Amino acid sequence: MMNWDLHLSKRASLMQGSAVREFLKIAAQPGMISFAGGLPDTTLLPVDELQAATERAITNYGPKVLQYGATEGAPQLREYVASRFRSVGAVAENVLITTGSQQALDLVGRVLLNEGDTVAVQNPTYLAALSAWRPYGVSFCGGTATSPLPDEPKVSPRAIYCIPNFQNPTGESLTHDQRLRLTNWACAKEIPLIEDDPYGELRYEGEKLPSLLELSGGLESSVLHLGTFSKVLAPGLRVGWIVGSSGIIKRLALAKQALDLHTSTLCQYVALEFALNGRLQRSLPKLCSSYREKRDEMLECLQMHLPADCTWGKPAGGFFTLLTLPEETDGSAFSRAALAAGVAVIPGAEFHVCGGRNTVRLSFSVSSRTEIREGVRRLGKVLQRTGNGSIDLVESTLQRSLM
Amino acid sequence: MMNWDLHLSKRASLMQGSAVREFLKIAAQPGMISFAGGLPDTTLLPVDELQAATERAITNYGPKVLQYGATEGAPQLREYVASRFRSVGAVAENVLITTGSQQALDLVGRVLLNEGDTVAVQNPTYLAALSAWRPYGVSFCGGTATSPLPDEPKVSPRAIYCIPNFQNPTGESLTHDQRLRLTNWACAKEIPLIEDDPYGELRYEGEKLPSLLELSGGLESSVLHLGTFSKVLAPGLRVGWIVGSSGIIKRLALAKQALDLHTSTLCQYVALEFALNGRLQRSLPKLCSSYREKRDEMLECLQMHLPADCTWGKPAGGFFTLLTLPEETDGSAFSRAALAAGVAVIPGAEFHVCGGRNTVRLSFSVSSRTEIREGVRRLGKVLQRTGNGSIDLVESTLQRSLM
Repeated sequence: MMNWDLHLSKRASLMQGSAVREFLKIAAQPGMISFAGGLPDTTLLPVDELQAATERAITNYGPKVLQYGATEGAPQLREYVASRFRSVGAVAENVLITTGSQQALDLVGRVLLNEGDTVAVQNPTYLAALSAWRPYGVSFCGGTATSPLPDEPKVSPRAIYCIPNFQNPTGESLTHDQRLRLTNWACAKEIPLIEDDPYGELRYEGEKLPSLLELSGGLESSVLHLGTFSKVLAPGLRVGWIVGSSGIIKRLALAKQALDLHTSTLCQYVALEFALNGRLQRSLPKLCSSYREKRDEMLECLQMHLPADCTWGKPAGGFFTLLTLPEETDGSAFSRAALAAGVAVIPGAEFHVCGGRNTVRLSFSVSSRTEIREGVRRLGKVLQRTGNGSIDLVESTLQRSLM
Repeated sequence: MMNWDLHLSKRASLMQGSAVREFLKIAAQPGMISFAGGLPDTTLLPVDELQAATERAITNYGPKVLQYGATEGAPQLREYVASRFRSVGAVAENVLITTGSQQALDLVGRVLLNEGDTVAVQNPTYLAALSAWRPYGVSFCGGTATSPLPDEPKVSPRAIYCIPNFQNPTGESLTHDQRLRLTNWACAKEIPLIEDDPYGELRYEGEKLPSLLELSGGLESSVLHLGTFSKVLAPGLRVGWIVGSSGIIKRLALAKQALDLHTSTLCQYVALEFALNGRLQRSLPKLCSSYREKRDEMLECLQMHLPADCTWGKPAGGFFTLLTLPEETDGSAFSRAALAAGVAVIPGAEFHVCGGRNTVRLSFSVSSRTEIREGVRRLGKVLQRTGNGSIDLVESTLQRSLM
């Protein structure tokens, strides 16, 4: 019998199983109210239009939709994405189609990061960016939720990672000034600045702010802009993109070729047919209005049911808010107690480079307004019972029930 | 203006641009007869059934087909793949769904290979396996087309890679004895043996031989079995799999999570609906009969048009044969001369760890029989003109025309 553990690479030991996966599995159980995953609302997925989009894809592109394609992406889809970045003069050659934004993160790591490098990230930040880059042997230095830079950066980081709009997990955004300062600093020092913008179009109030790519002076700057169809269209397609100078796009494509040859042509052409002719733009108001209602519901209920020593942000878009519990309350113990009460949340520490022990991430995207009301009410009850002792008690009951 | 070259990782320098990509681009130009790419015949892709498969996927799985899914793969597809490996007792937990076999190769590299390791491969072997593993800093030792092991292996390799059926690029297969000897050796030494079998079901004559996985004693051995829908169904879906012990499948899934979260759920469910209820099996005879005719056409034409000092294999399945030119003829120069004559082939040296300078790979999968006849006739003419001088002349003309 083969003992595979003796044959793993050193790299494999840097791939950490995340507690989040376990929470997500439990969150998927029937009867559970989920504030856990950052999924789009299943009822908003365009299933009814999938058939029509597939039909159009077949009509327009024939067997191409099932054949091998170029590593860089389907020409028509690259062109479509480029058309969304005309403000910086993008053309198809500035676009690499990726298998979701997650692959874009991995590609950036592969092509830009060496063992021992430091990447500056918001603190807290998107967990799966950390998971993507950790196997490359890098470490992270964290700023705040609205700046990836520590107050006085001692050494220049190898790269900077920033989600400027409604970031995961806090829902916060960088102000215009914060964007400008960050972009100027990175561009002056020629440090790769990875802008990740999955939520930018899910804005529920206020004015759209310029992207870091726009503020940087454009495609020849040090900014790489990452985007995806996952939040505004359908994550099951696994179609994202990187926009940048054609030179680095070529290098990233070369790396991608060894990863999966190319992103599914079927998914690319279906996504294109979903999106073209203003279809995607026309679908946004309905999405935004639905998610806005859910956000409002959650914020009202938090106000109603949570004690005064809890705080949370009021996101202007996206899927998340970060709940800060009383300082002595452990977010992980609280999350387990919440699970026992039938509500799934994710411990905020998971998203932090340091700190965040007394936080939990709440997602309002996937549950209905009724579920949100009931779920927050239960979270309030769990907190009323607090005092770490009682949380520990609930937790150990849960542990037993999961064994 | 950002100079990205100053910011690339050391790893990026190990990612080699391949001459093959350039040949493939030229091969795709109108009017070119292509023996270059290992693509399925576009006219055999099941476009007519795509609409129906999508409809069934929506009916059976609803919005799931557009939502995030488990990293390991859709449960129903894992179960389907497992059902194809019942001879070794596979269940869903023994299957990881990958974004094509290419991702399976990358995952194996990530999880098993360290810098400085040696991987034993057939010589020649599949080019994209070399491209997948080279960035991990490994080197390769090559055996023969029918054995990845050198005659007297001095040191045990870290892993062994083998395509036992109709391998790319020679079309050759391992005999039963060769399979047994290889598997016994690898299993006795507990060396990971990566069995890649994209072509196994495209057999045009003779009896099916047992897989290395079957010969190894099964799922707890050191064999990982890689498969794909790309050659028998549609490469545009990018759906492949790894079959192995549940422990290593879990480690590979953890690595995959950081790569692309999961393979497109749409593609997984569409592939499942294409394949289920014996549909895939029923489609194989038509595929095999079509590819068999093309193979026969190519072999007959080679016999007719090529000089006696050329040799080639007679593959019993798959897409390829390797043409060995007279020893003084450079395969790369010949390939360029062939391009100038309107026929795309790939220099065989690209697939070799060492040697193979006077070989070219011919694929009979994508061109029609008429194109095959005309293409081989032209190859014969190019060879008649040979003497390196004349090839060089044609080549330099081509170079100019491509500039």
